[in-house]
Amino acid sequence: MPSRPGDAIAVRLADIAAALGGELRGDGERVIERIGPLEAATPHTISFLAQPRLKPLLDSTNAGAVIVREDACAPLVARGVAAIVVPDPYLAFARLTRWWAARTRPAAQVGVHPTAYVAPGARLHDTVSVGPFAVVEANAVLAEHVVVGAHAVVGEGADVGAGTQLRPRSTLAQGCRVGARGIIHSGAVIGSDGFGFAPHQGRWEKIEQLGGVWIGDDVEIGANTCVDRGALDDTVIEDGVKLDNLIQIAHNVHIGAHTAMAGCVGVAGSAKIGKHCTFGGAAMILGHLQIADHVHISAASVVMSSILKPGQYSGVFPIDENANWEKNAATLRQLHTLRARLRTLEKKSSP
Amino acid sequence: MPSRPGDAIAVRLADIAAALGGELRGDGERVIERIGPLEAATPHTISFLAQPRLKPLLDSTNAGAVIVREDACAPLVARGVAAIVVPDPYLAFARLTRWWAARTRPAAQVGVHPTAYVAPGARLHDTVSVGPFAVVEANAVLAEHVVVGAHAVVGEGADVGAGTQLRPRSTLAQGCRVGARGIIHSGAVIGSDGFGFAPHQGRWEKIEQLGGVWIGDDVEIGANTCVDRGALDDTVIEDGVKLDNLIQIAHNVHIGAHTAMAGCVGVAGSAKIGKHCTFGGAAMILGHLQIADHVHISAASVVMSSILKPGQYSGVFPIDENANWEKNAATLRQLHTLRARLRTLEKKSSP
Amino acid sequence: MPSRPGDAIAVRLADIAAALGGELRGDGERVIERIGPLEAATPHTISFLAQPRLKPLLDSTNAGAVIVREDACAPLVARGVAAIVVPDPYLAFARLTRWWAARTRPAAQVGVHPTAYVAPGARLHDTVSVGPFAVVEANAVLAEHVVVGAHAVVGEGADVGAGTQLRPRSTLAQGCRVGARGIIHSGAVIGSDGFGFAPHQGRWEKIEQLGGVWIGDDVEIGANTCVDRGALDDTVIEDGVKLDNLIQIAHNVHIGAHTAMAGCVGVAGSAKIGKHCTFGGAAMILGHLQIADHVHISAASVVMSSILKPGQYSGVFPIDENANWEKNAATLRQLHTLRARLRTLEKKSSP
Repeated sequence: MPSRPGDAIAVRLADIAAALGGELRGDGERVIERIGPLEAATPHTISFLAQPRLKPLLDSTNAGAVIVREDACAPLVARGVAAIVVPDPYLAFARLTRWWAARTRPAAQVGVHPTAYVAPGARLHDTVSVGPFAVVEANAVLAEHVVVGAHAVVGEGADVGAGTQLRPRSTLAQGCRVGARGIIHSGAVIGSDGFGFAPHQGRWEKIEQLGGVWIGDDVEIGANTCVDRGALDDTVIEDGVKLDNLIQIAHNVHIGAHTAMAGCVGVAGSAKIGKHCTFGGAAMILGHLQIADHVHISAASVVMSSILKPGQYSGVFPIDENANWEKNAATLRQLHTLRARLRTLEKKSSP
Repeated sequence: MPSRPGDAIAVRLADIAAALGGELRGDGERVIERIGPLEAATPHTISFLAQPRLKPLLDSTNAGAVIVREDACAPLVARGVAAIVVPDPYLAFARLTRWWAARTRPAAQVGVHPTAYVAPGARLHDTVSVGPFAVVEANAVLAEHVVVGAHAVVGEGADVGAGTQLRPRSTLAQGCRVGARGIIHSGAVIGSDGFGFAPHQGRWEKIEQLGGVWIGDDVEIGANTCVDRGALDDTVIEDGVKLDNLIQIAHNVHIGAHTAMAGCVGVAGSAKIGKHCTFGGAAMILGHLQIADHVHISAASVVMSSILKPGQYSGVFPIDENANWEKNAATLRQLHTLRARLRTLEKKSSP
Repeated sequence: MPSRPGDAIAVRLADIAAALGGELRGDGERVIERIGPLEAATPHTISFLAQPRLKPLLDSTNAGAVIVREDACAPLVARGVAAIVVPDPYLAFARLTRWWAARTRPAAQVGVHPTAYVAPGARLHDTVSVGPFAVVEANAVLAEHVVVGAHAVVGEGADVGAGTQLRPRSTLAQGCRVGARGIIHSGAVIGSDGFGFAPHQGRWEKIEQLGGVWIGDDVEIGANTCVDRGALDDTVIEDGVKLDNLIQIAHNVHIGAHTAMAGCVGVAGSAKIGKHCTFGGAAMILGHLQIADHVHISAASVVMSSILKPGQYSGVFPIDENANWEKNAATLRQLHTLRARLRTLEKKSSP
């Protein structure tokens, strides 16, 4: 496999410890060249221990340094492996990846690429970056440090908050709004028409979608994910929401702050979802229902009515060898009848 | 939330009534500034009553005017709220949104944007609009009033009917055809290769997809939806079909007129689907089967064999608290055995 | 339906037989104008018999020629229909479609389209084709005969192997790699960020995705499919893998050689999938699990734990008329209780 730009730096361990605000136990001059898991580490790798059950790996890892909690420090020091002690190693790892990326990835070049098209009347802060063939339509507003990638389209009157990145080939349609520090990944479509039609004599008459999309701060929208504009009011995604790839958010959905959804989730129109919820991949939420804060939906489960109590909810047919599944699935179609037969027997046996 | 262009007009109620062909009961000079639901209406809002169960809202709404049926008119008039009387308020609402959008949204500018690329040999009607960086390849045909959005790609020899809009970043591949008055939303891919391979010694040998895609009039294709080209003949989508976002239509599927599919639906190869069907979100239809006219498939249900009788069909594992689900799912794997045990008991009890 | 370029050629049957390496029984001068199924064939159509159960169609087809196995040859010859005899007619058909496409589809024009943007430092072989508005960033490498379609984006330092096609509007992000003879279809996004966050005080802290995507030779990636870059190491797709449209491959997934996945499949992070597997449409594979070689997952089935034994696996709630489904689904929520009641009865009856 080819080396990537991200592989090609060498940093002092002391600099990493300082950046993370952790306490260094060991040689700060040690050179670190990559971040990696404990099992595949080399002496120039920095690793981390996030799950207590993996603690035994500390006795065998070849890592040059490991980010750990105080209580996991001893076996490393005993073996001469450097440790960076922090209260939450997984969080420190997350921050290290950002520190690392800032050093290894080329910053977006400030300015408008000569091939881009910026319509008259668009308002761009001096610090924005607009990539090759990007389109920024009239009256769009790009705040400081916004990055518009190659082939991204910012529609008429759309509004992009400070530091937000529109990755290559993403689309923010007219009049839609994204807050600060967001990331809209490639292929995402924000503000396409909601799916609204009135039936009339066997045909569908289009309901123009006059609302928009309102997205808060610190929101991430995955590749090829769609967020439709509202019918009359806005579709709303509050601060800190994280959406993975290939998700469908229908018109007038409202997603509460800091809720996260894994890939392939679908949310039907006007569903109102609480804060701090999580949705496993391919979970499906029907329309016009409500989900409370702190609800967790397992992967591939279908929410068909409101859930008003926090907790974990699931609904998936268990997979099995095909022959077994066929027998059980066939029987399932008679389940109601089976219950009736069971009742009959119960009555007989308890006269 | 920021105001959008669509919010910024003021119209006379009499003009709305005339446009809808409804009978006005009340002051035609009243100024209307937005369309909104009954609950959140203000004196400058026009609203509508589509569902009889919401009729009590007419006693409290602050709307300036409401679109209603004759039989719901009285409470409004009694309170001095204007009414527009029509036979089908939801249909009138749909038409009002279109009338409204025509007044608030900038029309596409006729002509080819200077940054677009139109290959020699493409045939464009004088009235078409081609946006920034759009690509129209050789021998493509664009009829009157076609709108090709920014970054849309029209392949070689493709054919677009009068008034159809290809929204920004949509793709119509070579030799494919869309009829009149259609909308292809952003990110949609019409005419990508069908998924066809011949197995050979543990490998897959590609079957080139020599067919195309044939789409009728008044069809809407959602954002990031895919319609694959046929293997030998065309994939066919008849008039009036409405497809939501992130739908997969495989090669040689045939979808009958005025059928509608919600987001995330998948249709496997060569399925033949009737007219006037509806499919809830994430419904999945296997290949080489037939679905009659007027069949309605519930969300997230999987069609594994042909359905020849109109009606509503469902198949979803019910969601439950995770602990309950785990117990029931585990038992489900023994369901066939449970039936056998029930039979044994029944035999014992009826000697 | 309009005729497409692919319809417009006429070839001698003898040339087809020679190209396929098959034995011709009949008139080699016969003119063939299209490939088609047995049922809809005309005297200028060449057809094929892949499934023995369709053999009776040989007695009635109007095809001018049919590709068959030796044992199906007789009825054709008896009726004066030409035959091309091969050991595997379906494979021969696949190869014929490729031979046909090579004759009917315009080859990509070698060279960089004047509207494309190629950054300084990109390395392009003399034989590559780069289409309108395509973007090739610095340090990207395009090997011989690579085709970069209109609006495709090749990120910084990305690597594309010989003969691979990036179809219009596909994206290969920075530092990612595709091998030789691949096809990346329109809208596909290779190398978007994996979905990784550390929870911290009710918020999500981004984990930068420092890995890349490594794709082998002869791989096809469908329209609007997403393959995320790895967190630390690469997401890996081995040789000969075929992915259909709208598939989600999360970070650090590993897919073994010659595995095929139908549309709408989702694979969660770090799943390790074997070689020669197949996945039906909308199958869902949870994260951090392992699937052996030669495992076949039925459509819409959810894999929730590792599968270590080859075979066919299924898990789908059977669809039914809605009223029946409702009764059975309601009963399913009490299934565990039903089993307990059955046990009670069994104890009573066997004292």
